[in-house]
Amino acid sequence: MIVAHALAGEVDVLAFDIFGTVVDWHGSIVRELAQLQPQVDGDAFARAWRAGYQPAMARVMSGELGWTLIDDLHRIILDGILPQFGLEALDEEARRHLNRAWHRLDPWPEAVAGLQRLKRKYILCSLSNGNLGLLTRMAKRAGLPWDCVLSAEVFRAYKPDPATYLGVARVFDLPPARVMLVAAHHDDLAGARACGLRTAYVERPLEFGAGHVKDVTARPDNDMHTKGLEDLAGQLGC
Amino acid sequence: MIVAHALAGEVDVLAFDIFGTVVDWHGSIVRELAQLQPQVDGDAFARAWRAGYQPAMARVMSGELGWTLIDDLHRIILDGILPQFGLEALDEEARRHLNRAWHRLDPWPEAVAGLQRLKRKYILCSLSNGNLGLLTRMAKRAGLPWDCVLSAEVFRAYKPDPATYLGVARVFDLPPARVMLVAAHHDDLAGARACGLRTAYVERPLEFGAGHVKDVTARPDNDMHTKGLEDLAGQLGC
Repeated sequence: MIVAHALAGEVDVLAFDIFGTVVDWHGSIVRELAQLQPQVDGDAFARAWRAGYQPAMARVMSGELGWTLIDDLHRIILDGILPQFGLEALDEEARRHLNRAWHRLDPWPEAVAGLQRLKRKYILCSLSNGNLGLLTRMAKRAGLPWDCVLSAEVFRAYKPDPATYLGVARVFDLPPARVMLVAAHHDDLAGARACGLRTAYVERPLEFGAGHVKDVTARPDNDMHTKGLEDLAGQLGC
Repeated sequence: MIVAHALAGEVDVLAFDIFGTVVDWHGSIVRELAQLQPQVDGDAFARAWRAGYQPAMARVMSGELGWTLIDDLHRIILDGILPQFGLEALDEEARRHLNRAWHRLDPWPEAVAGLQRLKRKYILCSLSNGNLGLLTRMAKRAGLPWDCVLSAEVFRAYKPDPATYLGVARVFDLPPARVMLVAAHHDDLAGARACGLRTAYVERPLEFGAGHVKDVTARPDNDMHTKGLEDLAGQLGC
């Protein structure tokens, strides 16, 4: 007999963090580099690109930069790191193509199957700092079955700004406690929890690659702790 | 031999008007009324509710009302017309349920099959004055396979404001001419055309019910003229 988690009937909307939670940005960027520039250390390149992400968003949120889509932040960071990897000669077309690698990220192997199960019972949306065009093209390519693509772009604020988490509840005309954020990052989950949302942690020990295994120890602050989206579906009785 | 329309390869995104174009608001509201309040003239009720829609949006766009979701405008109009139909005694729960009828609109019979064909080749999004929550719940119930739910709510302006049409092009980082609006209303298509989008008209002669057949004569201003979404798919070679 399967007993669903106590939250199963108390939540209507599952909002998913994307980079690292649903898709494997590190492995996908490494694979892109191996194809396009096999001489480059793809692991170091992927981590350098991603490492520029939080500082770039901080420049926007501080007002130093105006509102900027993640596609454009990715490009600013990319232009900055290319010389470190001997790629300063890449032309505009090659840079544009490489920057779009973030539209072509592959899902973690069990993510699509988990989402399909969850979709039968819940409204599924993304809640990512990625922009709508990026998230839509990624979903179409990878088969991510969102009911609605939500993004920082809709709320004109990046996570962990409360406007994003509360924005999801407002879009669906629900109390925050009927929305659950699903994410592989404790800071994101803490932001959601502070706004009254439920939280589910997802273990993604290989988010930064096999050479940099992440601590995925359970923390008691979260409502749920899962090994992936199939596990989430199972715990929720889907 | 099937020759696809000349536009087939020149457009990446199809943006769909919803009320009347993809879903049959008149027939759906008539069916809701027949179930909930069979003594009421459902045809007159549906048309009275819908007739309040443009004036209500005009109050927002003029600044008389602040930014308001369509769910809330529908409710204001509903509260206004209930006495005319002898329904002033409806309690809050019944009014809330009836107002959500707009989340439960049925698609035109061939709409879902047409969208499924179009989705193989194009990015499909809604572009409706309806709010995101309404459009998402409608799509989930009816099986409308959007790649992205876009709404006036994202752009904080109602169609035919240029911010909505140009907003779709900007979301997908495309020139306006690579986006086509699909709609059953010439004023909507004219707004899109003025912004440089392509336009496809959809014949929906029964939008206002069998007692009020609409003129669906082709107009040369539109890039395409179609009898429905299956016809659109056929003409585009999908």
